[in-house]
Amino acid sequence: MSNLELPVLEPEAVPCCAPLSSAELSVGDSVTMAAMFKALGDPVRLRLFSKVASAEGGEACVCDIQDVGVSQPTVSHHLKKLREAGLLTSERRGTWVYYRVAPSVVAGMAALLDLDR
Amino acid sequence: MSNLELPVLEPEAVPCCAPLSSAELSVGDSVTMAAMFKALGDPVRLRLFSKVASAEGGEACVCDIQDVGVSQPTVSHHLKKLREAGLLTSERRGTWVYYRVAPSVVAGMAALLDLDR
Repeated sequence: MSNLELPVLEPEAVPCCAPLSSAELSVGDSVTMAAMFKALGDPVRLRLFSKVASAEGGEACVCDIQDVGVSQPTVSHHLKKLREAGLLTSERRGTWVYYRVAPSVVAGMAALLDLDR
Repeated sequence: MSNLELPVLEPEAVPCCAPLSSAELSVGDSVTMAAMFKALGDPVRLRLFSKVASAEGGEACVCDIQDVGVSQPTVSHHLKKLREAGLLTSERRGTWVYYRVAPSVVAGMAALLDLDR
């Protein structure tokens, strides 16, 4: 594996997903989950996440994203932050890095907020 | 309606709740929703939110919360931030302010992340 290869996130790694109404969150889980919510806590980043989530074929690269009002390096920076938080996975193909939503991670966040369950 | 008039958020109004996979988020909705996610993007605040959400009777006041490792004024500050973001509602009764989860707002956040829908 070369140094340029991107880290692979295990698809099953969802730290917790019991609804917040059913039990108090542990200190450890609150650190992990807060980092995920924080990743969506910026308007530009949230829009970028929605662009990837709603993209045709379920994936997008920086080359697909022009209309968010920030520069391409800034788009790359935000997408990387979303990947580091576990919300996106990435794959390099040729010149570009393609991003996809990590469905189980996002499902874990949704489950946490599903207070009626 | 004049150009200067700002949109009024009804207390029960959830600005958007179509899953992010179904459509790209608008600029306006991304600002509103990012503020909500940001409110949960701090480990202590997320734990406090989980304490309120899982509290007996569905409500809690600062007087009920001792074990998060921060001072009572800090707890109050965080609860106020969660209320300002729309995630909690509050009611003063005597000396204390009691907090409850705003279920429709939190349901809107969960719906946004429900990518399989």
